[in-house]
Amino acid sequence: MEGVNLTGSTFVIGVVAPAAPVDPKIVDPIRQIAADLYGDRVEVRFHPHCFLSAGHFAGGDADRAAAIIEFANSPDIDAIWFGRGGYGTMRVAPAILAALKPEALAKPYLGYSDLGVLMAGLYNRGAPLLAHGPVVHDLYRPNGIAAVTRALRWLVERSPETLEPGLIPGRKVAAFNLTVLCHLIGTSLEPAIAGHELLVEEVAEQMYRIDRCFAHLSDTRLAREISGLRLGRCTQTIPNEPEFALTEEEIAAQWCARAGIPYLGRADIAHDADNKIVPFGGITA
Amino acid sequence: MEGVNLTGSTFVIGVVAPAAPVDPKIVDPIRQIAADLYGDRVEVRFHPHCFLSAGHFAGGDADRAAAIIEFANSPDIDAIWFGRGGYGTMRVAPAILAALKPEALAKPYLGYSDLGVLMAGLYNRGAPLLAHGPVVHDLYRPNGIAAVTRALRWLVERSPETLEPGLIPGRKVAAFNLTVLCHLIGTSLEPAIAGHELLVEEVAEQMYRIDRCFAHLSDTRLAREISGLRLGRCTQTIPNEPEFALTEEEIAAQWCARAGIPYLGRADIAHDADNKIVPFGGITA
Repeated sequence: MEGVNLTGSTFVIGVVAPAAPVDPKIVDPIRQIAADLYGDRVEVRFHPHCFLSAGHFAGGDADRAAAIIEFANSPDIDAIWFGRGGYGTMRVAPAILAALKPEALAKPYLGYSDLGVLMAGLYNRGAPLLAHGPVVHDLYRPNGIAAVTRALRWLVERSPETLEPGLIPGRKVAAFNLTVLCHLIGTSLEPAIAGHELLVEEVAEQMYRIDRCFAHLSDTRLAREISGLRLGRCTQTIPNEPEFALTEEEIAAQWCARAGIPYLGRADIAHDADNKIVPFGGITA
Repeated sequence: MEGVNLTGSTFVIGVVAPAAPVDPKIVDPIRQIAADLYGDRVEVRFHPHCFLSAGHFAGGDADRAAAIIEFANSPDIDAIWFGRGGYGTMRVAPAILAALKPEALAKPYLGYSDLGVLMAGLYNRGAPLLAHGPVVHDLYRPNGIAAVTRALRWLVERSPETLEPGLIPGRKVAAFNLTVLCHLIGTSLEPAIAGHELLVEEVAEQMYRIDRCFAHLSDTRLAREISGLRLGRCTQTIPNEPEFALTEEEIAAQWCARAGIPYLGRADIAHDADNKIVPFGGITA
């Protein structure tokens, strides 16, 4: 196990929210789950900015960036857990990335969806312990305790049973929300994932938008450089008018075939409580 | 006037539909408007594929591509007018572009929204008579007769009063739907518009998605190369939960400021009947 030595001082997980705000009522249940797992050996520390509200976001851009930089660079914080997705990470990612110390890059970071923006930037800077997986707010999903438990067990222990079951030791991998990844293409935050297996998932889109994302992605340098693609679940899909005629897997397979990308089947990731952990870069034997 | 000589044979406008199907009931009213303007000197010819239906599209990919190639390459067709937007042009644009003869590139093409995909590809191949403007189905909008009349007057006569009022002779310009343009970034169809003023419009999106598109676009090579940006109308906006706090113009201006792009004000383009004509490349004196 690559996990942390828990015999010493308390392991502090810092929660920050680059996008939407965190519900203050989630703090106690989250801490209770951590206590049930680890007693007082693990502390989940919420940065106060998580509970701010500025329009769509957990505080203004400057407030969010400063808070995330503070926790990421702090020697008192052992791991960063993102509180919630939504939208907003693109507004603060460049400022955050510019201010991170080398120590900040060495920490584990866990999140997905909109947080993929920051994951991409961190991965491009060589951060070794990034993972696509549940955020704090996933507690509110059906069976959310399982998601949060999985997140904690990866953050604290790097527990192997938290991992997406299709990962193969030594095979490079990266995971993203499909739409978020499209909006990184051609930017300074486009992930450098040549040779990686790419896992994508989607939530709350019409099928034509899923098709459009694959049309986009499959005609990019990123697509030409990946080793293959696996499709996570597309959940809460919005009805397509008229019926789209293809399923999400037919869409993914069709665009992969057109682009010469090996389509490697389904992935156990999604905007749901079953969302398994995908460490960026993959797993070792 | 750069328009066509109408003293000779009939000017034939070919209607094709790379995305959603065309309502057959629109044919007679459209032809009546053309007859009212031009008598029998102009014919609006609908390719039969326009009325096919295959899931989301006006026929399957192969049917749509073949029909559009047929009309574009035909010596009997003087101009191409797109029947309707929606989604689907990315599925057929590469096949169409690969099959067009030089004569096809010389014709006028008129459309917007999803058709921007094909416009980008045609513009990159040097087509001189492309314009962002109303499609056939805009007849169904309130005051749609004005939109269709404007379209015909540009296609047939290149009438100056059809033009977007902010165009300046000699200033290069291009116009796109914001989301469609984002999905072209990094692809073989990304428009080559260095030195151009970019006009963008949006329809039926939440404000956070408009912000996300600007976040994307403003961090690309395309954004660094354009001479400035003007914002068309954002219509039928879907309520943002919570309220986004910024208007679409504040969003555009903010991202332009961050990226060092001159923000040049509003543009008279949109998914509405007032949608004025923007010739790709701009206008001459």
